[in-house]
Amino acid sequence: VKADFSSLSLRQHALVGVSGGRDSVALLHALAENGYRRLIVCHLNHGLRGRASGEDARFVARLARRLGFPCETGRANVRREAREHALSLELAARNARHRFFAQMARKHRCRTVILGHHAEDQAETVLFNLLRGSGLAGLAGMAAESVLTIPPANRRQRPLALRIVRPLLGVRREAIDTYLQSRRLRHREDASNASAEHTRNALRHTLLPMAEKLLERPVVPALLRTAAIVREEASWLASLCPATEPETLCAPELRSQPVAQQRRRLLNWLRAHGVPHAGFEEVERVRSLLDPAHVAKVNLPGGRHARRREKRLFVQ
Amino acid sequence: VKADFSSLSLRQHALVGVSGGRDSVALLHALAENGYRRLIVCHLNHGLRGRASGEDARFVARLARRLGFPCETGRANVRREAREHALSLELAARNARHRFFAQMARKHRCRTVILGHHAEDQAETVLFNLLRGSGLAGLAGMAAESVLTIPPANRRQRPLALRIVRPLLGVRREAIDTYLQSRRLRHREDASNASAEHTRNALRHTLLPMAEKLLERPVVPALLRTAAIVREEASWLASLCPATEPETLCAPELRSQPVAQQRRRLLNWLRAHGVPHAGFEEVERVRSLLDPAHVAKVNLPGGRHARRREKRLFVQ
Repeated sequence: VKADFSSLSLRQHALVGVSGGRDSVALLHALAENGYRRLIVCHLNHGLRGRASGEDARFVARLARRLGFPCETGRANVRREAREHALSLELAARNARHRFFAQMARKHRCRTVILGHHAEDQAETVLFNLLRGSGLAGLAGMAAESVLTIPPANRRQRPLALRIVRPLLGVRREAIDTYLQSRRLRHREDASNASAEHTRNALRHTLLPMAEKLLERPVVPALLRTAAIVREEASWLASLCPATEPETLCAPELRSQPVAQQRRRLLNWLRAHGVPHAGFEEVERVRSLLDPAHVAKVNLPGGRHARRREKRLFVQ
Repeated sequence: VKADFSSLSLRQHALVGVSGGRDSVALLHALAENGYRRLIVCHLNHGLRGRASGEDARFVARLARRLGFPCETGRANVRREAREHALSLELAARNARHRFFAQMARKHRCRTVILGHHAEDQAETVLFNLLRGSGLAGLAGMAAESVLTIPPANRRQRPLALRIVRPLLGVRREAIDTYLQSRRLRHREDASNASAEHTRNALRHTLLPMAEKLLERPVVPALLRTAAIVREEASWLASLCPATEPETLCAPELRSQPVAQQRRRLLNWLRAHGVPHAGFEEVERVRSLLDPAHVAKVNLPGGRHARRREKRLFVQ
């Protein structure tokens, strides 16, 4: 596989997320083949596949042992967490994975996590985000290298910044299959949190193939190209906004800026104020305060509100 | 219909594109109802629907007469043009429409063209552009008001800048249907260049409904929201690039800028040099010249090439 390991030094400790499915098995083998020795295999049992879940975990443990890597296995009850916190299965599964990686990162004093997302995953992410009405951050898809900040689990902890590396992001699924076959590597079918990713699987198996048929051309490379363009545009725009916003904002100053800049700054500002679920709707509501003729107070989620007083914006 | 006529003055002359299909019929009626009198109905027969084409044209002429507007009818042979210039039917049809509007704009000394694109058209455009691998310009979809520059048809002409206004861009198809029914307005089924827009119709009738089913939520509003966000981001980015680039570019200066800025500037530069079909691939090829360790010459379409010499980039 033409994986991109350029940002991973051989001497560095790193966690590798291994579900036991084809992508993560290929990733782990490719890392081993390329001389990476200081890896810790991390497998989270999402508790979503009944008995098969336990078999996935044992498969991964054996694989790690054979390749000479230590293996950490965690357990979560994603279905229960989803119910209790009123989250989608997909979101609950992601939270559980983040928590697990944070725990392992602390235990092994290691800040790098290597994941097996590949080109089709990226294409799906971009399409999924578009269909959900995402802005540039979503349309940029995943980055080959990014920083994931995990909030503290308790009062003694500080937020944890993990470096996420995705060496297979430019690799097509077909190439992964060929790699596995050429080395006669076994993997678990449908390992991973398959049932938690119902919508995304449907996108992959029905919507993308249908789009290719309609357009009579390959759609995955097109989606990857869009992601590559948008990622750079988004990072340029982000660099044009202040890293931190003041406690209150000057309405006339903000109003004089491009709409896109207003939106980005207000989103950062609402998030810094801890407004929950701040998104496009909330930003647009606050943006309406910039008009001196408009009402001076708007509601925000979580019982908060934003107010304009003496030409400045406040969150209360 | 909650059409947005805010950018159209009642006293202004304007061309209205009327195919005879539901959208343009609703548009024309809504304009008449809102007191617009100085309109010129423009209908282009694309020659794609056989006998039905002629009936569309007569239908539009009668409609215009009844509402008291002058009517201009043009003819094109889109199929032949597509064949002769090796274009898709869709592109040939668009070129023919542009030529027709340019001709009418000159004849009537009128620079505004009103078109009937609605919310579903916009959603489709955004999705279609994403699946083709478009950058921000494509993901922004159509603008409610934009400028279309039409190249001269001969040496005596100058390029023509038409103001395109789309009052129905925020109106859902369903609302248009309700409007037509409530006023018992007739329209031609499948008028317009239906067969030239095969792919887009397929997107509308199969891909969008399937996406809504998979995501279990309305997809059209999400796509409109993405378009609205992206449009502002794109216009901010465009405002950050010089309106015109010099004949040659300074490689180290360009290299010091964000990748997205490099890409935008190089695209403008290639287009200003008249490089045909300049797009992402061409831009990336020229961008590789910014690396002093890379070859100093790359090929461009149309037998052109770009070269780096003494730290400057040239098009030859």
